[in-house]
Amino acid sequence: MKPTAEIVTIGNEILIGHTLDTNSNWIAKRLRHYGWQLSRVTTIPDSLSEIQSTVRNAIARRPVLLFTLGGLGPTPDDMTMKGVARALEAQIIVNGEALRMVREYYRKMEGETAITHARRKMATLPEGALPLKNPIGTAPGVSIERGGTRLVSLPGVPREMKAIFERSIVPILKEEGSGAPIETTLRITGVIESALAPIIVAARQEYHGLYFKSHPRGGETRHPLILLHVYSVEEEGRSKVREAAAYVLKRLAALRPVASDR
Amino acid sequence: MKPTAEIVTIGNEILIGHTLDTNSNWIAKRLRHYGWQLSRVTTIPDSLSEIQSTVRNAIARRPVLLFTLGGLGPTPDDMTMKGVARALEAQIIVNGEALRMVREYYRKMEGETAITHARRKMATLPEGALPLKNPIGTAPGVSIERGGTRLVSLPGVPREMKAIFERSIVPILKEEGSGAPIETTLRITGVIESALAPIIVAARQEYHGLYFKSHPRGGETRHPLILLHVYSVEEEGRSKVREAAAYVLKRLAALRPVASDR
Repeated sequence: MKPTAEIVTIGNEILIGHTLDTNSNWIAKRLRHYGWQLSRVTTIPDSLSEIQSTVRNAIARRPVLLFTLGGLGPTPDDMTMKGVARALEAQIIVNGEALRMVREYYRKMEGETAITHARRKMATLPEGALPLKNPIGTAPGVSIERGGTRLVSLPGVPREMKAIFERSIVPILKEEGSGAPIETTLRITGVIESALAPIIVAARQEYHGLYFKSHPRGGETRHPLILLHVYSVEEEGRSKVREAAAYVLKRLAALRPVASDR
Repeated sequence: MKPTAEIVTIGNEILIGHTLDTNSNWIAKRLRHYGWQLSRVTTIPDSLSEIQSTVRNAIARRPVLLFTLGGLGPTPDDMTMKGVARALEAQIIVNGEALRMVREYYRKMEGETAITHARRKMATLPEGALPLKNPIGTAPGVSIERGGTRLVSLPGVPREMKAIFERSIVPILKEEGSGAPIETTLRITGVIESALAPIIVAARQEYHGLYFKSHPRGGETRHPLILLHVYSVEEEGRSKVREAAAYVLKRLAALRPVASDR
């Protein structure tokens, strides 16, 4: 079984369409690469009650990793830490290590170490939280363990999110993941999806445990193009994936004419 | 109050990172344009139990519109209709009008009207559902009313989703929406986010009911660029939005030096 992860993305800017969420897609690829399974992504507004209830519900599903993205900055609508603390029923306090990180960042970049209200806010975390160094921005990431789930809060700015992820999360993915997936993608032209469907049904029965998913890409009936993704989550699946792909290709070659699908 | 909408996106291809979900962003913009509020987006795998529970939970939040995206095609992992039917505790039956639409599509495109198992599947809908004509593809959209929520299931292929949306959903958005939002975006350079934060706090207090959201875009302390979005949901907000923007600009001009934020 692959370890599971969930993402909760926090931000009105996504829900009003100002920002396209590319963070979830980037994390999805990283998780897959290391043999993890992303089971759900939820996008919610900058609302304390929404953050609280959504994080609480996510923890109840017991993913191994739960990411929150966004809402760690200095402005008043950055309220992820407060919402997470409520979900965990934890106090929210100034974290000494996080404060040191924030101060160090401003010292290096600006040559001054004044801790303003806005900056202290970025170091105010739920009790028991561990700050994760942000190598290129001010707000540290935050890691908290709760009942078998490691909750990781990352900034929404993509390059900061990625920098913390590579530094602090990838080592966890490597250690606990099941390794890179075994997979292949067939590029099928000239066959419509409804003609491919019964072949997939048969391939599934023949190759139990493999995963088949078709993605129509071209026109529906004129110039159809379908990407068929064949995938195994087990280590010994490599030869089975190749066999299954050959099986599908053989069945496709036998389609004369295309429309005689059943 | 703006009418609310939710999106449930169904598809393993998104959760493994193969496909970037651009549909939600497109719908978010359409909703905003017509004065609707997108309150949540949830992405789940092709799993009957996940579809059932997620749709049921979404309906319990009583959005005016609830979209499901994806899983309407002919292949076995297209199981949205079955999952929706379970969530609604409805029977799933062949819908005569939907079958006519599917048959008509194949007649026009292929000159043949055979109804195969895979094609009948695309016309098998929850009892009481209304098929929505798909002008450019095979699988019709589906609309079902339940307890004050209109559940609309659309295909995941972007151009088919958009074609059905423009034809069948935009008229609803126009009729029930509160009209285009009143907003402005300030492009602020040379001020770091933690220096802007107290100005936003003050602007919020001064202009109650307006919505302020800052989006850092440039570097954090070198060449900072922040987009500040000022937004009103009320019809009479137009002059208030202009006033609030002027207020922020005046406060920004008074920042000497930048770091003296509090």
